[in-house]
Amino acid sequence: MSDIVKKVIEGKKRDCARLITIVENEINGYEKYLKEIYKYTGRAYIVGITGPPGAGKSTMTDKLVKHIRSKGNKVGIIAIDPTSPFTKGAILGDRVRMNDLSLDKGVFIRSMGTRGSLGGLSNATQSAVKILDAYGCDFIFIETVGVGQSEIDIVKNSDTTLMIMVPGLGDDIQAIKAGVMEIGDVFVINKADKDGAKKTALEIEMMLDFKKDWKFRPPVNLCVAETGEGIDTTFKNIIKHKNYLESSGELTKKRFERNKLEVKELVQRKISKLVKELEYTNEVNELLDKTITKEIDIYSLSDILVEKIIND
Amino acid sequence: MSDIVKKVIEGKKRDCARLITIVENEINGYEKYLKEIYKYTGRAYIVGITGPPGAGKSTMTDKLVKHIRSKGNKVGIIAIDPTSPFTKGAILGDRVRMNDLSLDKGVFIRSMGTRGSLGGLSNATQSAVKILDAYGCDFIFIETVGVGQSEIDIVKNSDTTLMIMVPGLGDDIQAIKAGVMEIGDVFVINKADKDGAKKTALEIEMMLDFKKDWKFRPPVNLCVAETGEGIDTTFKNIIKHKNYLESSGELTKKRFERNKLEVKELVQRKISKLVKELEYTNEVNELLDKTITKEIDIYSLSDILVEKIIND
Repeated sequence: MSDIVKKVIEGKKRDCARLITIVENEINGYEKYLKEIYKYTGRAYIVGITGPPGAGKSTMTDKLVKHIRSKGNKVGIIAIDPTSPFTKGAILGDRVRMNDLSLDKGVFIRSMGTRGSLGGLSNATQSAVKILDAYGCDFIFIETVGVGQSEIDIVKNSDTTLMIMVPGLGDDIQAIKAGVMEIGDVFVINKADKDGAKKTALEIEMMLDFKKDWKFRPPVNLCVAETGEGIDTTFKNIIKHKNYLESSGELTKKRFERNKLEVKELVQRKISKLVKELEYTNEVNELLDKTITKEIDIYSLSDILVEKIIND
Repeated sequence: MSDIVKKVIEGKKRDCARLITIVENEINGYEKYLKEIYKYTGRAYIVGITGPPGAGKSTMTDKLVKHIRSKGNKVGIIAIDPTSPFTKGAILGDRVRMNDLSLDKGVFIRSMGTRGSLGGLSNATQSAVKILDAYGCDFIFIETVGVGQSEIDIVKNSDTTLMIMVPGLGDDIQAIKAGVMEIGDVFVINKADKDGAKKTALEIEMMLDFKKDWKFRPPVNLCVAETGEGIDTTFKNIIKHKNYLESSGELTKKRFERNKLEVKELVQRKISKLVKELEYTNEVNELLDKTITKEIDIYSLSDILVEKIIND
């Protein structure tokens, strides 16, 4: 076993951070480390935090993490900011507020920005989750500051997805209804001290009523993350979903499907790399010249090159 | 040679339309037809029409085509609408206006909408261009009703790109400056009867002044496509660029690079298809089960599957 992997498994925080950076930047040998670390994964429980902008995702995460920490569990936080190309390993602006958390030795915080492509970010997140898992985190929270693709990535990579709503979404709730139904395993109405919190909760319950055959009907609770009110219930609801997944065998199924998807993505990436690395040697350039003189057509040339990639 | 390909080369309009549909929908054997047709391509001159929304791209195309038709040349028009999933083979709404053109036997008009992905649209466009080329078009116009990716596709597939500007873009011209410089081979200020046309022309000339080492400095002219004023000059400028490309050998270079790119895309597509077709056989599912029990890691499994794709 590589030294760095050994240290991560022993719970060395600095090595954990270093390994995430190595994997994120695809530094030589990164996949060897991932292969080594793999058998130490699968223990952590992964919670995705999502919701519309301004719903208080970061505050909710912080309070949930503090709640868990009071029980002595080790926690990892991955904050995804797809709008930032810079956060690579750095602390996000709004994480400054989490000072007390970042000083806590039992909490590992990592912010991730886009590096080139969203596919890259999704990949880096998946790897970071595995490293934090092997590092010994009992819970890993994935939180997005953005919307769109990163939200999909969160759901894809989580065991439980917590969907945060806020009062006064008004008609917007109609618009997100369809998507929300598919995404949330647990619902929480944050900022419940504001007008209309109960109405929003009712609307969500009504939405959930549309589906009759719930194996696990998502619980809905009110919360004021800022003051901590309702955080315990929110966490209990997450655990309810966790218990359901574990006792029903659904967790294994979910993780099987997740692995299937991740393997598919890995295969796609590896093959794409082979295509990108295809060298335009003199031989290939001569064949391209022949496409101009019509001695060969581009479709037959592409067949030749596919063969070349496949047989090299 | 297939019957349909033979008929296209003989200039049968209905078969030309049919073959484009076959290729667009990737109906069985479509690539065989493309292979057969390839050696009959390379004769047509391809003009891309681009510019901001409301610049009058369709009107400009129509008037240029009528101008060319008055000289007896055969013309193809491909109108790309990436916002529409429906236009497949149909006539776009704004094409209704082109009644007189669509009745003209020497003009072939085809509208193309997105079919699933933009990559698909780009591919379909490239194939349609080749079919129209073999069909005997002297000029093929590619025009977009959308923006963004389709614009890039147009430039990528054209010999000459005509960039249409309009008076009163104001500060917008600053924003598009960088992109425009790279894109336009010929510039035309349409709606030149409006205030500020000369100022816009001047601004473009100043923009062009930034680059000192033009091999072919894009000509700029004023035009009122609606009335036909300036259409002859616009066409002359296109021909100027055509003559430059042909006499300097740049046309061959350009087409070589275009083929190189298209071959690369074909290879990428073919390989992606292999990945998508990867069957989740019992064998693969058993290996996936082993990723859950940690007997194998997902990275090693992806290696196995890449090998499988490559060696099958």
